[in-house]
Amino acid sequence: MSRVAVLLSLLLSLLGSLTASGAEPRARDLGVPFDGTPGPLNAITDVGGVTVGQVTLLEDLPEGRKVRTGVTAILPRGLDSVNVPTFAGWFALNGAGEMTGTAWVDESGQLEGPVLITNTHSVGVVHDATIAWRVKYGPPDPSGYWWSSPVVAETWDGDLNDINGFHVRPEHAMRALDEARGGPVEEGNVGGGTGMKCHDFKCGIGTSSRVVNLDEAHYTVGVLVQANYGAREDLRIAGVPVGQNLPLEVDANRPKDRNGSIIIVVATDAPLLATQVRRLAKRATLGLGRMGDVAYNGSGDIFIAFSTANHDALTGKDISQATFLRNDALNPLLQASAQATEEAIVNSMVAARDMVGTEGHSAKALPHDALVALLRRYNRYTPPH
Amino acid sequence: MSRVAVLLSLLLSLLGSLTASGAEPRARDLGVPFDGTPGPLNAITDVGGVTVGQVTLLEDLPEGRKVRTGVTAILPRGLDSVNVPTFAGWFALNGAGEMTGTAWVDESGQLEGPVLITNTHSVGVVHDATIAWRVKYGPPDPSGYWWSSPVVAETWDGDLNDINGFHVRPEHAMRALDEARGGPVEEGNVGGGTGMKCHDFKCGIGTSSRVVNLDEAHYTVGVLVQANYGAREDLRIAGVPVGQNLPLEVDANRPKDRNGSIIIVVATDAPLLATQVRRLAKRATLGLGRMGDVAYNGSGDIFIAFSTANHDALTGKDISQATFLRNDALNPLLQASAQATEEAIVNSMVAARDMVGTEGHSAKALPHDALVALLRRYNRYTPPH
Amino acid sequence: MSRVAVLLSLLLSLLGSLTASGAEPRARDLGVPFDGTPGPLNAITDVGGVTVGQVTLLEDLPEGRKVRTGVTAILPRGLDSVNVPTFAGWFALNGAGEMTGTAWVDESGQLEGPVLITNTHSVGVVHDATIAWRVKYGPPDPSGYWWSSPVVAETWDGDLNDINGFHVRPEHAMRALDEARGGPVEEGNVGGGTGMKCHDFKCGIGTSSRVVNLDEAHYTVGVLVQANYGAREDLRIAGVPVGQNLPLEVDANRPKDRNGSIIIVVATDAPLLATQVRRLAKRATLGLGRMGDVAYNGSGDIFIAFSTANHDALTGKDISQATFLRNDALNPLLQASAQATEEAIVNSMVAARDMVGTEGHSAKALPHDALVALLRRYNRYTPPH
Amino acid sequence: MSRVAVLLSLLLSLLGSLTASGAEPRARDLGVPFDGTPGPLNAITDVGGVTVGQVTLLEDLPEGRKVRTGVTAILPRGLDSVNVPTFAGWFALNGAGEMTGTAWVDESGQLEGPVLITNTHSVGVVHDATIAWRVKYGPPDPSGYWWSSPVVAETWDGDLNDINGFHVRPEHAMRALDEARGGPVEEGNVGGGTGMKCHDFKCGIGTSSRVVNLDEAHYTVGVLVQANYGAREDLRIAGVPVGQNLPLEVDANRPKDRNGSIIIVVATDAPLLATQVRRLAKRATLGLGRMGDVAYNGSGDIFIAFSTANHDALTGKDISQATFLRNDALNPLLQASAQATEEAIVNSMVAARDMVGTEGHSAKALPHDALVALLRRYNRYTPPH
Repeated sequence: MSRVAVLLSLLLSLLGSLTASGAEPRARDLGVPFDGTPGPLNAITDVGGVTVGQVTLLEDLPEGRKVRTGVTAILPRGLDSVNVPTFAGWFALNGAGEMTGTAWVDESGQLEGPVLITNTHSVGVVHDATIAWRVKYGPPDPSGYWWSSPVVAETWDGDLNDINGFHVRPEHAMRALDEARGGPVEEGNVGGGTGMKCHDFKCGIGTSSRVVNLDEAHYTVGVLVQANYGAREDLRIAGVPVGQNLPLEVDANRPKDRNGSIIIVVATDAPLLATQVRRLAKRATLGLGRMGDVAYNGSGDIFIAFSTANHDALTGKDISQATFLRNDALNPLLQASAQATEEAIVNSMVAARDMVGTEGHSAKALPHDALVALLRRYNRYTPPH
Repeated sequence: MSRVAVLLSLLLSLLGSLTASGAEPRARDLGVPFDGTPGPLNAITDVGGVTVGQVTLLEDLPEGRKVRTGVTAILPRGLDSVNVPTFAGWFALNGAGEMTGTAWVDESGQLEGPVLITNTHSVGVVHDATIAWRVKYGPPDPSGYWWSSPVVAETWDGDLNDINGFHVRPEHAMRALDEARGGPVEEGNVGGGTGMKCHDFKCGIGTSSRVVNLDEAHYTVGVLVQANYGAREDLRIAGVPVGQNLPLEVDANRPKDRNGSIIIVVATDAPLLATQVRRLAKRATLGLGRMGDVAYNGSGDIFIAFSTANHDALTGKDISQATFLRNDALNPLLQASAQATEEAIVNSMVAARDMVGTEGHSAKALPHDALVALLRRYNRYTPPH
Repeated sequence: MSRVAVLLSLLLSLLGSLTASGAEPRARDLGVPFDGTPGPLNAITDVGGVTVGQVTLLEDLPEGRKVRTGVTAILPRGLDSVNVPTFAGWFALNGAGEMTGTAWVDESGQLEGPVLITNTHSVGVVHDATIAWRVKYGPPDPSGYWWSSPVVAETWDGDLNDINGFHVRPEHAMRALDEARGGPVEEGNVGGGTGMKCHDFKCGIGTSSRVVNLDEAHYTVGVLVQANYGAREDLRIAGVPVGQNLPLEVDANRPKDRNGSIIIVVATDAPLLATQVRRLAKRATLGLGRMGDVAYNGSGDIFIAFSTANHDALTGKDISQATFLRNDALNPLLQASAQATEEAIVNSMVAARDMVGTEGHSAKALPHDALVALLRRYNRYTPPH
Repeated sequence: MSRVAVLLSLLLSLLGSLTASGAEPRARDLGVPFDGTPGPLNAITDVGGVTVGQVTLLEDLPEGRKVRTGVTAILPRGLDSVNVPTFAGWFALNGAGEMTGTAWVDESGQLEGPVLITNTHSVGVVHDATIAWRVKYGPPDPSGYWWSSPVVAETWDGDLNDINGFHVRPEHAMRALDEARGGPVEEGNVGGGTGMKCHDFKCGIGTSSRVVNLDEAHYTVGVLVQANYGAREDLRIAGVPVGQNLPLEVDANRPKDRNGSIIIVVATDAPLLATQVRRLAKRATLGLGRMGDVAYNGSGDIFIAFSTANHDALTGKDISQATFLRNDALNPLLQASAQATEEAIVNSMVAARDMVGTEGHSAKALPHDALVALLRRYNRYTPPH
């Protein structure tokens, strides 16, 4: 990538941030009703310390091949993720996909390092680049295992992206990691979500959050999705049977073979142990259920959750004190995970834009006006505050 | 139980069957829209060979204690279930409950014998009675293990039922097994579901089915639920936010602490291997998601699925041939599992009736007219054919 | 049971305790070498607070039927187990058996209440009795779930015991719970292990412990097994191929069909979280491996582990502090679990005595002198200190 | 790599094969006793159709950095693995390592394509190269998922190999795949095992097999290990406490921090379904147990098993017939998996040779004469036939 391209990309990223915080409508701006109370950004970054970095690759190659892909990195503790793990858990609703590093998440109850999401054929390059990025920050710990099993997940963008061109390079993964920031998160055709579709519409990255009160304390649950799943006719938004009422523009949005996938990352600052965070990951399923999803055979529906609490408990002392909520107190957090997942997915659809992809393929985004009309027809339109 | 009581119970059971097939409205009779095509009975018994037996225990004891409980037995191959297993799999969305026998289902990929559902404090008696029932049919097989790990599941009816009276007796379990039949399945306040509530309304047993076509073949997926889960405000029916719009009659339906549960049994005649049937069990989750469920901390949401195909392959020959569909062909079956689960739950609510229970507790059923009014308000009312 | 019988049983139990602490040789008294340092009792009760209660049922019925069974109860925190859970985890090496309550152990990361072990056809009665025992101590907690999913496991004693007579009664389970004590643990033909065999020799209950040092702290790992598994020819003791060298007295120890099972309970006072305790449960597998076990198809090899630390963290406050060791510090505890499992199994064989059982079946115990001779032949005899 | 280097490598590989089939002693040639009957090659390739390809990278770089690593590829059906999956299952004894592609193995019950093993920091490059290798053989199937989640596993060779140099290249993985052959399998310092150590001795690749008879049929179970696990003092060979009796040459074999790992691949031609093959994978644990292993915290002990039977059933027809053995008939196969694992590990140690590695590190192999002396001392020496 030339310097100009890099600058351009940075500028676009900046514009994206501005956009996310103001100009472009998100789902609830269109009148889609959701339950629960979102955080200030309504994004995974409402969970303090979480940073997100996204690198978007858009390039037109000879012979109609087009690059429409990228990398999204989520750092649970920002750069501190290099040294301090989080309690974590994961769940596969349907395992037709890849999330590396999960054996160690299961075994240790911890996530060591960031979560990266890219396309299916770039898992490897992002995997090794993430190790190399860690090595760059200093020698591996004496065990050599720290950072050696990074968590890298994927969904398939081969319809719009020249996936067998293997266009993601180590430097793209490293840049997503290096540039990760708090604040607003770009949604739609960006990062790992650049070339994705869901329910046969253009889709991509989406995010949302919920704030819940337990006794005197306030906790946040944030969700980020890379959405690439589902059949059109199954799509429900806020209970409205959108998919059955919205004619697909057939030439553009060729019905897929239902082999999409969705990666869901759930973050919270609530003090939870590994077994408890895993329960939050599982609740993403219920958010998906509200969308009408079926989790078809070829769909890699894999979710990971982590808690940013207990920073000091996980810095490697031989014996530590972990703060945790009792299981009976988790209900508002479980609910928040389902709710924020639902909204993050709708956000990923609302933010996506029409795209012309590789080999003449293209995809239309969900038309906002048609969505609003349907919400009204089914008496679900809820004017934004 | 006296003979008169037994006769009465049989008569009620018969009436129930008649009712189920005609007089009493089910969810779609009220205008609730569902996707997919149900089988002739719209019940788990549409899967050929599956039989269901239910014993309902209703008795008023001194000091205001009331028996409101029972047993529901599902036999995958009718009485042949004594000797011929089915390929099977199970899944716990939230494991705050009991389903015995699951370690062997996981290990063997098979369900040996029936599935029984009762209340939480009667799992043991039903467990041993099921073994004794098998012993009655002849000596255990040489290994002694056949039938020794029966599958018994439960939900908690301690709000309406005198659960610590331990009123379920071995003969009740045996009778549910002996009287199991094909044909219409009674719903609502019957069998194991007698004293159950869901979304804070009176609930119980519900069932539904879907017929799907694969190439030239027709397969059926049937679901039976014992529903006892959920908070009122989360309830969505056909996407309509029913729970938020239907005022709870507070005195009767005291908001529960969300510690309910739901047991879901998925049956199919499609030729599936163990790993494949388990995927159907998992899709029950997505049906639950459409209802707005959160799977709260104390909810035992445990699902089991089996395939009645491959009868001859599972009769114990050293080497056999199992018929199976390739994974890519499963999509309609996965969808059917989610759809039939959704409808079975709504059926369990629609069929339930107001109940006065133990210690002066009571529960109101979901009012049919209010449900219809809400369907109309949200433009989802669909006149029954 | 008459009062005289009860008194007799108490007396026998007392004698057993005396015996265990002195008169009867245990494995290392015979010169079997083991690695690691045992606690003072070399028993699961070396873990402070753990109590064990055992009820042994021996009765000769008409027509050659004989009762040879019982119940063993392990209470992680003694009577305090009624109110205070432990962090816990479980693992099935081969799931051809039953351990109830495991769905909630997985979900909550906690064991609420005791672990009971009995014969395969008495799981139910012990299950309900354990709930009733809890109810006796006061009303269930508001959720009603506390104590409603007890952990009850089993192995099959149908060769020596009239298993289809269902001789275990609720009062036996309750007595095992009520009489549980710290101190020496009876081994061999007692409690749930009364009628068990392993590697085709008479077997039963066995126990052992290890003390490990981490930095300045001392922790104990204790193991109790109900051993009923394995083929003779596979048996290795301290690496010596005992099974291949010890002729089986064929009439007495009829080769079994390898459908035995082993239940292993691992206790520790080390401060471990749920994910960590589960790792200790898994290491029981490696102790079994050292015995030459294969975990045959019909063997229910199911292990559960708990940590008695964090008493105050688990008393139900909304927010608590749990003490835990970092994963890197667990190695000595993992090793201790494997070592204590190995020794507990050998102890269960050494303590067992010849038994005449039901229908004329009988079983010989492993002859001590032959074992010693083999240890010498293979240069593994290690004189006891 | 230059052409000369390639030729040299081929020549070395050829020599290795000759060696493996004749000149160099394997464990049983030294008098180590094992149970069961091996196949003709005593290798995983005794399972018909299985091919193995290994690329060994040995290079001395400036500043004392040394390349000591490689790739081992196992193709269940040889080149036919490109198109025809196998029924498969996997198991993590301790998940401190990586095996990609396992979510789909779990979900589908199938292994699509080969298994590759390399070092920890080369998982990514081998992952993407395996996809690219498949793409080379023709367009991906319409779903695009075939071959998109390859199974790549690793162990850590950072003590002897310059692991952060990332020396494995895509062409190395492709060559291992392209050159995979049946016949004898090189053991010791080769392929992915080049720089590995176990029980603090030089180690690497090892293999073994067992032939079992069921009724009239003969089936083979073959195992290949990449062994890099364990502490010296735990090492038992054929029950002999080798580790405690063999002084470590401290300068060379610096005690490791026990963060090794072992990848075990179990192949069989017995007709088994997915749930059944997984049981074979689990039995590898018991072979490890016989070696005295503890599965320490940092050890990635991950096992995968597949059945080469049912070729025609898995070619993608919508409906097929799979041949399978009933669970009760599996015992000899379960035993064979444990036995062949045990022997494959000892073979990996016996075949390994002293190595001088990176940064001045080195490792001594287990001395053959000392091993034989110990076998004699403990009366376990068994003259080879």
